[in-house]
Amino acid sequence: GINTVMIMAVLLGVSLTPSLTTQAGLSEKVLVFPYETDFSFVALIPQKEMGLRAFTLCMRVATELPEERQIILFAYRTADYDELNVWREKDGRVSFYLSGDGVFFHLPPLSTFRSSLCLTWESRTGLTAFWVEGKRSTYQVYKPGHSIRPKGTILLGQDPDKHLGGLEATQSFVGEMTDVNMWDFVLSRSMIQAWHYGHKVPKGNIFDWGTIEYELSGNVLVVDDD
Amino acid sequence: GINTVMIMAVLLGVSLTPSLTTQAGLSEKVLVFPYETDFSFVALIPQKEMGLRAFTLCMRVATELPEERQIILFAYRTADYDELNVWREKDGRVSFYLSGDGVFFHLPPLSTFRSSLCLTWESRTGLTAFWVEGKRSTYQVYKPGHSIRPKGTILLGQDPDKHLGGLEATQSFVGEMTDVNMWDFVLSRSMIQAWHYGHKVPKGNIFDWGTIEYELSGNVLVVDDD
Amino acid sequence: GINTVMIMAVLLGVSLTPSLTTQAGLSEKVLVFPYETDFSFVALIPQKEMGLRAFTLCMRVATELPEERQIILFAYRTADYDELNVWREKDGRVSFYLSGDGVFFHLPPLSTFRSSLCLTWESRTGLTAFWVEGKRSTYQVYKPGHSIRPKGTILLGQDPDKHLGGLEATQSFVGEMTDVNMWDFVLSRSMIQAWHYGHKVPKGNIFDWGTIEYELSGNVLVVDDD
Repeated sequence: GINTVMIMAVLLGVSLTPSLTTQAGLSEKVLVFPYETDFSFVALIPQKEMGLRAFTLCMRVATELPEERQIILFAYRTADYDELNVWREKDGRVSFYLSGDGVFFHLPPLSTFRSSLCLTWESRTGLTAFWVEGKRSTYQVYKPGHSIRPKGTILLGQDPDKHLGGLEATQSFVGEMTDVNMWDFVLSRSMIQAWHYGHKVPKGNIFDWGTIEYELSGNVLVVDDD
Repeated sequence: GINTVMIMAVLLGVSLTPSLTTQAGLSEKVLVFPYETDFSFVALIPQKEMGLRAFTLCMRVATELPEERQIILFAYRTADYDELNVWREKDGRVSFYLSGDGVFFHLPPLSTFRSSLCLTWESRTGLTAFWVEGKRSTYQVYKPGHSIRPKGTILLGQDPDKHLGGLEATQSFVGEMTDVNMWDFVLSRSMIQAWHYGHKVPKGNIFDWGTIEYELSGNVLVVDDD
Repeated sequence: GINTVMIMAVLLGVSLTPSLTTQAGLSEKVLVFPYETDFSFVALIPQKEMGLRAFTLCMRVATELPEERQIILFAYRTADYDELNVWREKDGRVSFYLSGDGVFFHLPPLSTFRSSLCLTWESRTGLTAFWVEGKRSTYQVYKPGHSIRPKGTILLGQDPDKHLGGLEATQSFVGEMTDVNMWDFVLSRSMIQAWHYGHKVPKGNIFDWGTIEYELSGNVLVVDDD
């Protein structure tokens, strides 16, 4: 159907609409997803390929969505696999998926106030954890030995992984996201805490919010972080 | 059955598997129990015999286990008695058992973030309390005049006290434990608060995490505390 | 019955048992009521008569009792009236009674950790409020013009107000109480906050914990506040 075509176009980096022009740099800016839609998202273009055996992903996020609502927080997909997805699940847990079954964490609920959220994983040990406001969750061991495949598409706001290619409004993100950064290694506790408090840390070598390349689609606002 | 044999072997300090080699010192390390099992545990070797008329037991603990799940937090058993067990009960309370009926406390729930937990008891008065993040629970009076018997086995991760000798996966600990320390006397409030904040306190004379002797069995990881 | 006789004896200040000897001063001490009983209490002897048209009553209190359990926190009774009672009700609210219908407040729940609790009332306006950890509840207007009668008995741990004179185990206090102080006037917000933080405030002119006269009955422990 048309949705499949659209998603394939996105995955191939082909823009079907004139609004999909690449822009760069979101320093001091916030992405506002004001309504529930099945067409609003932000595609991120990584600085280096996403073939990864370790990573740290950080963002600041706020939402008014009710607790029992599924929310996509980050989606990285190659042609055949959901390579790296982060969700807030219906039961309130936050989950992390690497092409297959996921791993689930009980974290303090997302709220109308901004939360700082990081996720770390390394293939060697499989150790993975979320970091909320700089505090680490309990480690879980998840997919040791696994590799994340390169050459996919990264979306904020929507999940492109349905078999039939559709985006679903009921999974979309509504709220604010800012300061999305990603590194191809595991940051230390002190680095993650420094990031949380807004201190200087090594710039993300996959995504650096200050210089990030992105494409807006649908109804997403870029506003001053005030 | 085989489980009885295995537990008896553990209680006698006999190793049935080559993995049970004694190691020492866990400074800056965390024990990660990644999965629910009936075979993963850490046996602790005390610096002095556990014939006790008073003690302070402290640990830092984090778990993703659901609230209604029973969890063994500390088990000390002699041949015939569960000498000193600490549980998180199905109803969420934390309990303390000295060979017989236990005593129950309503504490803030264990969570994915690390809690600092101490337990104090002295035989003379029977006064006992938990200390969470350095704050004392209400005192209860429990088994005044009782003595804890020496020459038993101390386990983290499993409860060896079933009559038929089995370890039960549904009671096992899953999560992280670190900084397990034990003294043969009751620490003062200021000492317990100092320990909570990571300040210097008298080293545990039964267990001192920095020099603790232990044997890993099954699936338990020793990872850097980061 | 025998209970009526016992209560009348207490109300008249007559000791039926050799244990009821008057002692004075509880500085740095805590009263521990370890079990549910219908015979353990502490009678307080006021420094001046309790004919009152205003008061401030403060205490620190901790309990392991379940939320749905009624708990007597303070009872002052003359021959015919429950002059001044403070309860934790079955529905979790905290209540205040002056010989008749009471007034109810939604406060943070009492817990195993110590809460600081004050109650203020003045006859002129009827304004009354609880203060938890130094923070005032919403004012309510209660019995303006009323006077509390003198020459009664003050008990901690039990409620002596049953028509047949009995003490009821299911209403008894179990847990810890300390720092019970009472003034015959309304303390200012800054004074109540100072008291909460353990700073110097005018000594209670009805009860001053440091010099308080009291009689222990039944199973009540006086322990160091540690």
